[in-house]
Amino acid sequence: MDVDALVFDVFGTCVDWRGTIIREAEGWSRKLARKIDGTGLADAWRASYQPSLEEVRAGRRPFAALDVLHRETLDKIAPRFGLAGVDEATLDGINRVWHRLDPWPDTVPGLRRLRARFLLAPLSNGGVALLTRMAKRVGLPWDLILSSELFEGYKPEPKVYLGAARLLDLPPARVMMVAAHNGDLAAASALGLKTAFVRRPTEYGPAQTTDLAPNAAWDLAVDGMEALAEALGC
Amino acid sequence: MDVDALVFDVFGTCVDWRGTIIREAEGWSRKLARKIDGTGLADAWRASYQPSLEEVRAGRRPFAALDVLHRETLDKIAPRFGLAGVDEATLDGINRVWHRLDPWPDTVPGLRRLRARFLLAPLSNGGVALLTRMAKRVGLPWDLILSSELFEGYKPEPKVYLGAARLLDLPPARVMMVAAHNGDLAAASALGLKTAFVRRPTEYGPAQTTDLAPNAAWDLAVDGMEALAEALGC
Repeated sequence: MDVDALVFDVFGTCVDWRGTIIREAEGWSRKLARKIDGTGLADAWRASYQPSLEEVRAGRRPFAALDVLHRETLDKIAPRFGLAGVDEATLDGINRVWHRLDPWPDTVPGLRRLRARFLLAPLSNGGVALLTRMAKRVGLPWDLILSSELFEGYKPEPKVYLGAARLLDLPPARVMMVAAHNGDLAAASALGLKTAFVRRPTEYGPAQTTDLAPNAAWDLAVDGMEALAEALGC
Repeated sequence: MDVDALVFDVFGTCVDWRGTIIREAEGWSRKLARKIDGTGLADAWRASYQPSLEEVRAGRRPFAALDVLHRETLDKIAPRFGLAGVDEATLDGINRVWHRLDPWPDTVPGLRRLRARFLLAPLSNGGVALLTRMAKRVGLPWDLILSSELFEGYKPEPKVYLGAARLLDLPPARVMMVAAHNGDLAAASALGLKTAFVRRPTEYGPAQTTDLAPNAAWDLAVDGMEALAEALGC
């Protein structure tokens, strides 16, 4: 595979947002001495994700970083899951759970192997600050942080993929997009990037029905980052 | 010192551009079987650096990445230093010497200590691709790559320093600019960033006359990155 750089979707592909929020919510429940529905919160928060990005993509509002969009959603849904009337500092800390997401068990070992041979970067709709802090906390070994924020748009907008290739000073064909989401890969592939599908069948919980398998002939389809390293000869 | 992130000037502050070019030129001389004046080339190349950036800063030309500016200068000066009539691939490889600059001996050990406590990034007029490849080659342990390129300007333009703080999601006062150049620190300080002067008295060779000492009351003044780590309690 003649590529120099691998760029990774992050939420769901590298890290387990749903499991982390559910686990963290147990701590919030104890600290606030109230019952917080972490599973409901995680699912409702993520359900608002694409609609909130679409406001920006469609030009109905100016670019706003994902932390801002996450917080707007949180303010709307918090009361439904046991977080009514919580103070500002606590809500801000809860919003930053997206900076503290735990990687899937294969992510750090797989990336470490891949890093010996390729430039590695996230290419996420998460902001630069979010991705930087997430990486530092758990040791995601990125060579640089690439984020939709740098291009003031959101995947799957073409400017994000093409902007990443431009900053890397590589033709799109020398960059591989790695994602657990067929839509992300379809957008990248249409622009000439290589593609690797990583199966994450429980990203949305045990009853997940979407993105269980590749829906097109992506360059690679693997079961995790160690398998990706294997497939790429690392 | 209440800061969360340290951002570093790179050419001269972290890496020895002059010494590296002189050393590499010995290899080019052997390979091309001709006498190349590495010292003259290094000094002339760098002498054109600020004038070429100024064309962009003054708005006389649109933003162009530093690789492009470096190459324009190289094309102009190459014949004077033994590189007349050299083929395109060789010239391109020579131009990329700026991606392969060696760090000062204290840089990597100092940064490794600092990284345990602070977010670390370059904040250089070098481009993202240049800074990424430089870091990967010699193990500069950045958490993210920040470059003037992301803001389509060149230091000391304010948008570069303020853009870095914005991407880090930090107030300027929580960011420290680390540089061997008083002018860089003056621009950063005027915008509210903290400042650390690193003395590099041979950056321009043994007869250097500029930036031998801090010319204002910067927050810190140190003799290298290990000393910076010491001063910051790392």
